[in-house]
Amino acid sequence: MNYLQQRRNALGQTLKSRDLDGFLVTAAVNVTYLTGFTGDSSYYAVLPKNTLLVSDTRFEEQVREECPDQDAVIRGHNKTTLEAAAEALNKSGAKAVGVEGSRITLGELEALRQLAPKITFVSVDGAIEAQRAVKDPGEVEKIRDAVKVAERGFKMFLATVREADTEKDMVDALEGYVRRAGAKCTAFPPIIAVGERGALPHATPTNKPLGDGAKLLVDFGADLVGYKSDITRTLRSPFGTSPSRRNKLERIGYDFEKLYAVVLAAQNAALAAIRPGVKAKDVDAAARKVFANARFDKYPDLKLADHFTHGLGHGIGLEIHEAPKIRANSEDVLESGMVVTIEPGIYIPGWGGIRIEDDVLITHDGCKLLTTLSREPATLAAG
Amino acid sequence: MNYLQQRRNALGQTLKSRDLDGFLVTAAVNVTYLTGFTGDSSYYAVLPKNTLLVSDTRFEEQVREECPDQDAVIRGHNKTTLEAAAEALNKSGAKAVGVEGSRITLGELEALRQLAPKITFVSVDGAIEAQRAVKDPGEVEKIRDAVKVAERGFKMFLATVREADTEKDMVDALEGYVRRAGAKCTAFPPIIAVGERGALPHATPTNKPLGDGAKLLVDFGADLVGYKSDITRTLRSPFGTSPSRRNKLERIGYDFEKLYAVVLAAQNAALAAIRPGVKAKDVDAAARKVFANARFDKYPDLKLADHFTHGLGHGIGLEIHEAPKIRANSEDVLESGMVVTIEPGIYIPGWGGIRIEDDVLITHDGCKLLTTLSREPATLAAG
Repeated sequence: MNYLQQRRNALGQTLKSRDLDGFLVTAAVNVTYLTGFTGDSSYYAVLPKNTLLVSDTRFEEQVREECPDQDAVIRGHNKTTLEAAAEALNKSGAKAVGVEGSRITLGELEALRQLAPKITFVSVDGAIEAQRAVKDPGEVEKIRDAVKVAERGFKMFLATVREADTEKDMVDALEGYVRRAGAKCTAFPPIIAVGERGALPHATPTNKPLGDGAKLLVDFGADLVGYKSDITRTLRSPFGTSPSRRNKLERIGYDFEKLYAVVLAAQNAALAAIRPGVKAKDVDAAARKVFANARFDKYPDLKLADHFTHGLGHGIGLEIHEAPKIRANSEDVLESGMVVTIEPGIYIPGWGGIRIEDDVLITHDGCKLLTTLSREPATLAAG
Repeated sequence: MNYLQQRRNALGQTLKSRDLDGFLVTAAVNVTYLTGFTGDSSYYAVLPKNTLLVSDTRFEEQVREECPDQDAVIRGHNKTTLEAAAEALNKSGAKAVGVEGSRITLGELEALRQLAPKITFVSVDGAIEAQRAVKDPGEVEKIRDAVKVAERGFKMFLATVREADTEKDMVDALEGYVRRAGAKCTAFPPIIAVGERGALPHATPTNKPLGDGAKLLVDFGADLVGYKSDITRTLRSPFGTSPSRRNKLERIGYDFEKLYAVVLAAQNAALAAIRPGVKAKDVDAAARKVFANARFDKYPDLKLADHFTHGLGHGIGLEIHEAPKIRANSEDVLESGMVVTIEPGIYIPGWGGIRIEDDVLITHDGCKLLTTLSREPATLAAG
């Protein structure tokens, strides 16, 4: 039995347990997950006796290529995809049909209720997303490929970056290299932050040049028509280290090597805590404990725990953020086959930030890094 | 009075006319339109006595910079943005609050109803989108800038493209050049189609090289942190014209020049029909009439009207597709200040396609092209 069939069977179990005899999947990413179709603007309908992909003429050929065994309705120009889907639901005799509560808009649901007044629509939230949290081997391979391509693009970037390049130049260059390495595009707009700008976890690129700082934070990933990767490296930079360029905290001794070592120790503590059955929040706590225990003779007031201002990680797959959540308020429990980021970071205003982010497969007895880039502190060898 | 204030006053009129004393704007693009804030994940609340931007710590600095006069709530990590917004709504005493029906998800609305059980939430559909259809002068200038940058990037692309470049190579190169010309990124993934692949209006890039066809269709635009442009040019290519490479329809005389002339005539007919007060569908019809009347001695069976398989155009602005719709089933009426694409095209399977798309400002007595690239048939001068 193939993976698509397994996914549909699992969804079928959800419907049965909720007394539903139909389901209308409207989120493109979930349509892809259940059918293999990689286009958009199309719906997947589970009906009492069969299933249907509802699409339009733009995607006719693609549907045939990607889903040869799937019944499909290619709507004409005289109706919307929602109207075509409602027609199919009406014909099918379905009485209680699930919809994706966190995806469908209020307007779409109101239109459906008018188009199919005899059907009861029921909000089913996160059912497909919960299935997607545990990857099958084919998905793991696709994520591994997305990691490889991102890493190859990052190496091209490192080999070509120049002191005069601005954050914006570097974002554009990395985009080009990740594509050149084989990606459709980056998985999200890369975050590239020079010097103290690394203190903003979601920095948007400015005209600050690489040469204006003593460290560089790069958060990036690849999208390989579907599966995504998500990696962060923070590098010492040979620039911006002259006494006149060092910021105040660097001058009083906030030291890249010492702080990097703590972030890496936090990541290692998290990796050591990962195994099936463990609560996601306990993995987050394992990293947080390392920051809480870190002490520095030179700057005794620095409490690193206060500077790790986001969750430890998240699932990746067809989306760049998906289940499970690895953070203090998460109720998720880790399972073998999940693929998550582990990304501890510290952000010190006026000094900068360090984040180390890797992609991790949870295995039957622990975890395995999918990322292969070194996690040791490294110096940018910029030309 | 500044533009933001005008936009908010217009929204205030909508609320008054619907007996609402509040509005929660959740779509990022509409938050940007009403506040000038260009980040995401933030909401804008119109309350009985004031307005609030609800955001989180990631955007604290950006909110201060971009919206210095706007009251803002920066939520803590212990709640979601929706929870913080609901809290503000509860405190404000609002009784009937509008939400964006075509934007808010069913799940978000259900959560709001639980968090603010005394408030009646009312679906208001397309109100802000209708305002956005008519641009103020500042917006027109931003779209004009997005056109300029896209055109500059396209010229760089034309100056550097090579016979061996694949559609994928060309998409990646154009992305880089549009950024190099000053854009944050392209306005949408560019469509670049070689030879007969131009027959697919939404072709995704393949490994087909430029040298494999006698024409090249390029549909692209620029995103300048907000406002967008959308342009298509179809060029003769010096490659793929040898007898062995010509496709069957090219061999029997389907001639690029003659067909291009009809598409250009259709576009000119549409441009001549545009003025305030005209129905959008009549402009679509003006273009369609040119196709219906086109006759060719050599291939009398070719009915071009059957090969123009999409609407004539759409509004552009903060989104790449927005109001008004210019198509046969549109109820929209043109107004001065609207900015729209006019993009007639023909798609002949096995032969290819021709589309000419320009960005057009509707003026008090007609229209003005924002695009400055020549619309005359041109040959790619590839190195």
